[in-house]
Amino acid sequence: MKIFAYLAADGPAIGIAGANDRFIPLHEVAPDFPRSLKPALELPYGIERIAAVVAGKPGTQPLADVTFLPPIDAPNAFWALALNFKLHLEETGLTTSPDFPHLFMRHAGSLVAHGAPLRNPPPEVSQEHDYEGELGVVIGRGGRHIPIDRALSHVAGFTCVNEGSIREFQRHNRNFGLGKNFEESGSYGPWLVTPDEFGAIGEHTLVTRLNGIERQRTKLDDMLFTVEQVIAYLSTGYRLRPGDVIAMGTPGALPPHPGEAIDPARQRTRHKTNTGKSSMRTGDVVEVEISGIGILSNPLAGDEPVGYRPG
Amino acid sequence: MKIFAYLAADGPAIGIAGANDRFIPLHEVAPDFPRSLKPALELPYGIERIAAVVAGKPGTQPLADVTFLPPIDAPNAFWALALNFKLHLEETGLTTSPDFPHLFMRHAGSLVAHGAPLRNPPPEVSQEHDYEGELGVVIGRGGRHIPIDRALSHVAGFTCVNEGSIREFQRHNRNFGLGKNFEESGSYGPWLVTPDEFGAIGEHTLVTRLNGIERQRTKLDDMLFTVEQVIAYLSTGYRLRPGDVIAMGTPGALPPHPGEAIDPARQRTRHKTNTGKSSMRTGDVVEVEISGIGILSNPLAGDEPVGYRPG
Repeated sequence: MKIFAYLAADGPAIGIAGANDRFIPLHEVAPDFPRSLKPALELPYGIERIAAVVAGKPGTQPLADVTFLPPIDAPNAFWALALNFKLHLEETGLTTSPDFPHLFMRHAGSLVAHGAPLRNPPPEVSQEHDYEGELGVVIGRGGRHIPIDRALSHVAGFTCVNEGSIREFQRHNRNFGLGKNFEESGSYGPWLVTPDEFGAIGEHTLVTRLNGIERQRTKLDDMLFTVEQVIAYLSTGYRLRPGDVIAMGTPGALPPHPGEAIDPARQRTRHKTNTGKSSMRTGDVVEVEISGIGILSNPLAGDEPVGYRPG
Repeated sequence: MKIFAYLAADGPAIGIAGANDRFIPLHEVAPDFPRSLKPALELPYGIERIAAVVAGKPGTQPLADVTFLPPIDAPNAFWALALNFKLHLEETGLTTSPDFPHLFMRHAGSLVAHGAPLRNPPPEVSQEHDYEGELGVVIGRGGRHIPIDRALSHVAGFTCVNEGSIREFQRHNRNFGLGKNFEESGSYGPWLVTPDEFGAIGEHTLVTRLNGIERQRTKLDDMLFTVEQVIAYLSTGYRLRPGDVIAMGTPGALPPHPGEAIDPARQRTRHKTNTGKSSMRTGDVVEVEISGIGILSNPLAGDEPVGYRPG
């Protein structure tokens, strides 16, 4: 099942993608159900109840017309992993603990929905706004001290994440801080794919494209820490809540394509290997595609110009 | 004006502390006003409207009976600074950027109210749960690209923070991650003191006591980055929202008191200087006092035992 949040004519709503590029507006078949995903996941067996309501029903509305919303409106925590793919560790020359997942947090306003513009800072603020294609894990059932062999039963679904990063600010200090939290600098969506439909995580492939050109491609079996290990570690100290999101870290960059000359202004990088890394610019289109989920696509728009904006 | 969030007989409410250890329940004098602080701050001139409503009115209820709530219910972001006091930099031997404030984030559930128990992890999880007395800054008016000379006009009030930290987890990786985000490991409150009443920030003194013994004492003029500088920096990339909180970093430790022998089991520290640092234990009482604000006090209770808790 593919579940998403979208803006219907009468407000936020939940949709379930069906066959033939059509979807079911959940509020039309279950008018008493919550109209956003966090309260839906907070209901006991929320996902199972949605599945039961839509079982056997055909999609009625065209997906092409949908205005997507970020899957979770204000998660208690949006966690993200640094340096969790082996190739990315090599290319950056950075080190991370081999024993403990490397976690930081983002605020909800740093991430927009599928189709919405990412905000690209003006050049005097940053010239290194980078895509990071990642697998997103949305928690369905909360918990504490979750054992590895029960971890996947706490997952509501998987989604695509573009964990957009402002590298100059990320390098200001030991903690990434503001560099991972610029307004609308990243995205996630378009929908959650439930674990039963997604199947074995490591069998899937993640691809990131900038203006149609592949820049990242990996199988999801290259992670240093698996989804299950990260859930178990986090829940040692943190009580996972329905609607929490965990972005599983970004893979390495592909090398430049044969004969390709990448604009050096887009390569203010400290990579140790020759990569096709290319920072994003206003007017670009960036896509993160994960097999079994689909494509998260966003155009790049300019952020507001530098200047005092109270309010 | 001192404003706080508390639990009244009929639900969450806002109180304004008056003279003679009594307070005004805001909903009794302004029944149409929001009953929690974030929506109150989101109203145009929210603080000024509260001040106008309670002007000249005496406190009616005894403060001693109040069950405090965390000042802000679910801020969009709780930011915190690392290594922002010069003495703390020296004692840890750590380095930070001299040019950019060192920021990370906490989730709301990691912080409890004045009077509520901090959760101390069981010894097999952590033996180094440390207090960090800090000045908390609560944003009243949001904004982006806020200039330094306008920054204080965006502050609703100041409060005390105990930015409780689980050092073993904080050291797992470059980003502090889970080490700063254990459930109910820190606190803030008891109330916001408005800037007009608080006066010059640098003139105030912060003291942290563990079981009545002073462990930190500093004037607030020892900060590497001022409140105004941090607001200006953050708002380069982040749109400040009403109800956001910024914890301004913790000062250094005092040396041991004359003749004092600190339990070495409480001193699993990497400090470079001889300090009276003493990790917290279940049964302790910890206080953060800031002149012009008051005392944030919390007992230490044991966290739940390690064991799977779905839900």
